[in-house]
Order: sequence, then structure tokens, then C-alpha cells
Amino acid sequence: MNGKIIIAIDAMGGENSPYKNIEGVSLFLKKNYKKNDVFFNLFGNEHLLRRELIKHKIPIDKYKIFPTNTVVSDEETPLTAIKNSKESSMWHSINSQILSNSNITLSAGNTGVLFVISRMLLKTIESVSKPALAGLWPNEKNMNVVLDLGANVECDEKNLIDFSEMGAALYKALFPNDTPKVALLNIGSEEIKGTESLKKAHARLKEISIHGDFEFNGFIEGNKITNGESNVIVTDGFTGNIALKTAEGTAKFITDSLKKSLASTLLSKFSIIFSYFAFKKFKEKLDPRKFNGAIFLGLKGPVVKSHGSTDAVGFYHSVDLCYRIIKGDLMNKIKNNLSHINEDAK
Amino acid sequence: MNGKIIIAIDAMGGENSPYKNIEGVSLFLKKNYKKNDVFFNLFGNEHLLRRELIKHKIPIDKYKIFPTNTVVSDEETPLTAIKNSKESSMWHSINSQILSNSNITLSAGNTGVLFVISRMLLKTIESVSKPALAGLWPNEKNMNVVLDLGANVECDEKNLIDFSEMGAALYKALFPNDTPKVALLNIGSEEIKGTESLKKAHARLKEISIHGDFEFNGFIEGNKITNGESNVIVTDGFTGNIALKTAEGTAKFITDSLKKSLASTLLSKFSIIFSYFAFKKFKEKLDPRKFNGAIFLGLKGPVVKSHGSTDAVGFYHSVDLCYRIIKGDLMNKIKNNLSHINEDAK
Repeated sequence: MNGKIIIAIDAMGGENSPYKNIEGVSLFLKKNYKKNDVFFNLFGNEHLLRRELIKHKIPIDKYKIFPTNTVVSDEETPLTAIKNSKESSMWHSINSQILSNSNITLSAGNTGVLFVISRMLLKTIESVSKPALAGLWPNEKNMNVVLDLGANVECDEKNLIDFSEMGAALYKALFPNDTPKVALLNIGSEEIKGTESLKKAHARLKEISIHGDFEFNGFIEGNKITNGESNVIVTDGFTGNIALKTAEGTAKFITDSLKKSLASTLLSKFSIIFSYFAFKKFKEKLDPRKFNGAIFLGLKGPVVKSHGSTDAVGFYHSVDLCYRIIKGDLMNKIKNNLSHINEDAK
Repeated sequence: MNGKIIIAIDAMGGENSPYKNIEGVSLFLKKNYKKNDVFFNLFGNEHLLRRELIKHKIPIDKYKIFPTNTVVSDEETPLTAIKNSKESSMWHSINSQILSNSNITLSAGNTGVLFVISRMLLKTIESVSKPALAGLWPNEKNMNVVLDLGANVECDEKNLIDFSEMGAALYKALFPNDTPKVALLNIGSEEIKGTESLKKAHARLKEISIHGDFEFNGFIEGNKITNGESNVIVTDGFTGNIALKTAEGTAKFITDSLKKSLASTLLSKFSIIFSYFAFKKFKEKLDPRKFNGAIFLGLKGPVVKSHGSTDAVGFYHSVDLCYRIIKGDLMNKIKNNLSHINEDAK
């Protein structure tokens, strides 16, 4: 490692690749032209990549191309992927954390396959029982880290405690001036509510939080996720996935209903002109591309998953997320936080 | 029973009772002044009730007052309620389905206590393993029935199948011209996704749906709840509660963000005047008071829970829901649907 942050990019993963991937890298470099501490290891079809890199005038001292021959398809299943994808851009972009000097891997490809290969090549951190998928979610004050978003259908108290420490580490890496405030998602805020795993995790997190890795806000209900009082929301992968997608669906339902209402009268059509800038601001604030990028936590190397269907702007936000994760020293923060879990149980 | 629909009202439950409760009844009678088939059994403080009934000019042939002396407090726990609440308006309003002629009970009081007393007095239907709490939720086309919303933290496949049949019966009772379309909430739409209980319920519902009680749409993800393709959304009580409250929180977050954006520029403030009617229409469509009322399904008598903090308009919508449940012959529809569960397994 030469002091730079080295991001491995699976340039062939996701819709419209490698075009949006390289354009996303280009957007990142334009917005951060003063920063001299970033370098890209790019994995994919050499001919295609070179053409796009030239088109976007990306300086040759900013990247290295690692030619690969195959691409993991969306139809590939995690069961057969290990056998079928050894030559793929995804596989090599992950393995470059071991064979080359990459610090982090970014892919917009098949999520299940990315998870399985990452887990196999990078290995799970010894003290972590299950890795988790964490995402970003807007709240009234800034941003939440929410996990698990679907890596583990069933979770016990040990998993929930691991997720809390890893989520707090991620929050601190991304927002160094802010305190992580952990809450467990539940069907009530009283300590007697919920499953046995939740109750046990609650009791243990109260003890662990004295180490100061995070503040512990106890249980919160679904309607408090976005109020900003907590910023690390912990739950099992089944509930987390349903909550995230329900929020996405509700957001779409409400903005669609609003559009229909506004389009329904001539006066309100007229008003759209006046409120153009306000609506623009509103849309920008909640633009899902800004929250693009889910992070696999609990592996010995960090891996970020971009939405497959996002565009260059969305991919740029994932690149930026990778940069901030390494800049914020996520892996050491996780190690430090996890060391507190069993400390006072000795 | 004299051919009328007789609704028992716990007039003392919830904030601002009995004022909103009696005003809600009054609103119902005003909107349905042509209907001569409804009668109210009212439970609460006789003096207070009489004063409010006179104030709202409710005809004396529309109600009977059953005087009660105590009220279940919000602090009462389900554990101690059975002992403490035998003289309460809530208790008597439920028990009037057995001792008097009430067809259905409506309360805005303590949810946990209402559930425990209802279950004890009315008893669970023999073939149902666990009763569930069902709610209404707007979708792109009309309305969803969603259950369980929190009565059961953990559910097995038998429970999910019961919920599907009971939810389909409720949908048919409320929307007689429409076909119930059942879907199981899951983290993916493929048959291999999710917990073992979900997979088993999926296989069995595919078989049962040939009886024609409902169409079965398989698994859906959280972002499809509101698209209107399914209208009976079935899940365990933990997930259902989190999904409902996450949707509520997201709706609030988005409308708050929109208000802030619109209030931030002079031009857009001006535009609010032009779009007044459009915003009014939008707010009316999504007014949560229209969806006020959760239904306990699986007991031998129907019980509806109104939000404790709703106003007279919200309470009116719960009264209307009670009326439609009995008019739609819910209890016989449930009986009929449940009879199909084990039929072809013989």
C-alpha cells in the first residue's frame, strides 16, 4: 500500500456496465480533483474499459486495468456461483484485496453471489458469528445506518450485539464528528416487549454501551426510524429487509399520490411552476441515488454493493461511500468495538 | 336480535372520551340517516353519556345506555386487567355480545387489555390457533387488509394460513364486489426465499386457493404492499407491526420534508395558495382517520379497536367499519373460509 486509498471496482456488474461504472468513477474524480489519495483497480473487459476511460479523460495515474473475461449474470445462483465465476470481474475485484493492494471492493452485480464469494474469499472476522448487510437511510437530522437488511433471515442475541458494534463503527467511520446512537427495532419501547433474542440483546447492550463505543437508546418502533434520535438501527435481516422496502414503497406511493393530486386541477398545474425550486429541493433531499450502496460488515475486508439499476450518479455515491469507509478506518473501528463485547464478561 | 345491526360501544375508552365517542356515533347517524337498521348499546358513565347524547340530538330509539362505574386506564397491564376491570365500560361492552344482543364491540381503550378480555370472554374459534389483529391500509387501487399487526410475535405456517383465510373473509365482507387477493410478505418473491414457515404456508395456500375463497399471489416484498395487485397482506405480528409503523413514519417524514421545502422560498409559499385544493385532496386521500380501526379476527365475536388518540371523525370511521363488518356477514364468511383449510387434506 502506497498511502493511497485503493478501490477495486467490478466494472462489469449491474445494468448498463461498464458505462455507468466508469462515468461514476469520473464523477468522483471531478468532485474530488483536489484529493490525491485515491486510486482505482478496475476489473473488466480491457477494450471496453480503455475506451470509456479515454472518453471521460480519466488520468492514467489514477487507475490500473485488470482484464477479466466473464461476468456474473443476474440469473446465477449463490449455489453454483463459486464454480462458475472464478474468471469474472466480480471474483477478481474481491480477490484483489488479497492478491493485490485493494482496500475495498465495489460491485453493482448479483447481490447473493457477491455475498457468497466475498464471504468465501475474504473470510468472516473470527469473533463475528454472521456478517450483515448495512444500508444508509435518511432521517430528520442526517442519516441512519440500518442493519441487517437481508443477509440473515434469522438472528439471535449474539448476532444483534455484533450488528450493533459493527453498525456503530460504520457510523463513526462515515460521520466522525457525531456520536453513534444504537437502537433495536421492536414492536414497543418497553423492555418487556418483543422476542427473547431482542430482550437478551437489550440487557447486554445496556452493559456494553458503558465502553462508550455508542449511546444505547433501547427499543424503538418503526415510526421512530426517521426521527433522528437514533442513528444506528439494528434488526434481523428479515425485518430489516421488509422495513426498508416498505419505506421505499410508501415513499413512492405518497409522491405518486401527490403528483396525481397536483396534476388534477389547472390551478395546481399553474402552481407547479411557482414551486419548481421547492420541489426540486425536496426531490434532491430524498433522491435514492444519494443513499446508494449497502455495506457487507463482518468480513475481513470491506465490500460495497451498489444497486444494479442505478445510474452514473448513483454509482458515484457508492464510490464516495467506499472512499469514506477507508478514510474513516472502518476495519480498525470494527476490531476495536468488537473487542468490548466480551471484555466485562470475563 | 331484532333484525338491526347492534354495535356495542365502550364510550369511555381513549383520549377525550366520551365526547369524541358520542360525536362519532352522531356523525355516523347523520351520514346514514336513511338507514334504519342500526342500534347502539352504549357503555359508560350514565350522566355524561346522557348529556352528550342530548347535545348531539341523537334520537332515543337509536341507543340504550348501560351504566358502568370504572374505566380501564392506559397503564393497566394485560396481566392484572382481568382482576381489575370487571366493572369497566370495556368489559361490559365486550360481554354484551354474550349477555345482551350486541353483534360487535368497538373500543378506543388500552389495546393489550382489550385483546386479553376479548379473548377470555368471547373465546377463540375452535379451529383457529391464534387470533390476529387486522388493519386497513391504502393502496394504489383501493384498500388492503393487512394482518397480523402485532397480536402474535411469532407465527407458524398454520397461523399464516388461518390469517389468510380470515383476512380474505374480512376483505370480502368489506368489499363484496371485489376479489380478495392474498399475498405473503417476504424478502423476495421466489418460492425458495424466507423462513421455513413461510415456505410451508406458501405451498399450502397454493392448494387451498383452488376453493376460490381468494386468489393467491404468492410472496411479495415490502415495496409492493401499496401497488394494489394484492389486497390481503399476510405476515407475522412482529413484521406486520414494524411494517405498518415504518410506513407511518415514512409518510410523516416525506410530508414534513415537502412542507419544509415549500415553506423555504417565497415563490413556493405563493404557490401553496394555487395548489390549495390539490393539497387538500392529497391530504384527504391519505387522512389516517379514514383507516382508523383494527379488527381482532379469530374470536367468536368481532371486536374493533379504534386509535386512542383519534378524534370524532376517526371514531366515526371505526363505527362505520363495525357496521360494514356485520352487514358483510364477516363471522359466517370466516367460518366458511376456515372450513376449507383441512378439507382436501382428508
